[in-house]
Amino acid sequence: MLQPILSHLSRKRIILASGSPRRKEILRNIGLDFEVIPSTFEETLDKSSFDSPQSYVLENARRKTFEVKERLTEQDEMADLLIGADTVVALDGQILEKPKEPEVAFQMLTSLSGRTHFVHTGVVLVASKVNDGKLAFEVNTFNEDTEVTFGNLTPEIINSYIATGEPLDKAGGYGIQAIGGTLVESIRGDYFNVVGFPLHHFCKELLSIHQNFWS
Amino acid sequence: MLQPILSHLSRKRIILASGSPRRKEILRNIGLDFEVIPSTFEETLDKSSFDSPQSYVLENARRKTFEVKERLTEQDEMADLLIGADTVVALDGQILEKPKEPEVAFQMLTSLSGRTHFVHTGVVLVASKVNDGKLAFEVNTFNEDTEVTFGNLTPEIINSYIATGEPLDKAGGYGIQAIGGTLVESIRGDYFNVVGFPLHHFCKELLSIHQNFWS
Repeated sequence: MLQPILSHLSRKRIILASGSPRRKEILRNIGLDFEVIPSTFEETLDKSSFDSPQSYVLENARRKTFEVKERLTEQDEMADLLIGADTVVALDGQILEKPKEPEVAFQMLTSLSGRTHFVHTGVVLVASKVNDGKLAFEVNTFNEDTEVTFGNLTPEIINSYIATGEPLDKAGGYGIQAIGGTLVESIRGDYFNVVGFPLHHFCKELLSIHQNFWS
Repeated sequence: MLQPILSHLSRKRIILASGSPRRKEILRNIGLDFEVIPSTFEETLDKSSFDSPQSYVLENARRKTFEVKERLTEQDEMADLLIGADTVVALDGQILEKPKEPEVAFQMLTSLSGRTHFVHTGVVLVASKVNDGKLAFEVNTFNEDTEVTFGNLTPEIINSYIATGEPLDKAGGYGIQAIGGTLVESIRGDYFNVVGFPLHHFCKELLSIHQNFWS
């Protein structure tokens, strides 16, 4: 979708403010050229102070992106585009963290078995340009929500999946792009959002920034 | 999902009767060990003689799998499991072929723009075992259907996507796992089915074959 503007984009400095290897791979995969500057913002926001997982991920994405923006501004090295994102898995409106122990992963995957949960991503795009010798900014934010339905999983299936090591440190305790893909009966929405970045929506926003802000 | 039986499966001779690099990758990705023997069955069935794309892909998958089965039987080298599959893209019940020319790809992608189409796969599994000194077979077949909704695509987006070379020789004129993923607004069903193989359903069938036929 970005092919018509890829040569324009190659002359822009684009920064992904996230260290996630999966986000990086999704964006490299479509031919986008960018640097990675992971945000140092620690995800310490109180989840209970947000009215929904959607507003939580959007605020996290905003903090991450603006932390990198501040750093670049101090160094007088502002980029043309900053991309920040945060993704969570939620069941019945409750956010499931990244499990650090096998026992927690077991509980998590058991709760997801045979049910439908959501993957929520918040994306913040900060575009800049020089206008009359001064930097001008435009901030785009959006949410993307994808429904994911798991098949019925026996304790044996769950335990042997945990033994692969894949569930640990993954939101919701699974990775759809690898062995975890076998657990997923169906999804509804953008697959790449479940991997960690809402690709189609991002491309639409970037086309719009190109046409309405940069041009 | 197959982890509990992977060590059993590693002692079986499993053959994928398809040369599709994407099917191979999906199955390798989950740790399955298998050989590839592409079927020589030519897809010459008259589509108009089938009442639906689903019955067409299932019959194609059956012919492909049984061609390999006959060959192995002649060589007295029957495998424990043969996996055959066929996938088509259909819009309004009409099958969209793999475009061979850019003009055909343009028409195809234009017809998919802003609309929902289906990806239909038929899978045939032929399991064998020795029973009282004789070979016994069990044949499992199933269909998997996934809905795919494209965003609105301008002629410029379509043409520049075709210029990447990706649409040629891909069912429906796109590949969701690469640049084509940017065109897809949402899906409903199994993502891996759109790539070319219904992963979750296959794992369920294989677990069932292990429990009810091989054990």
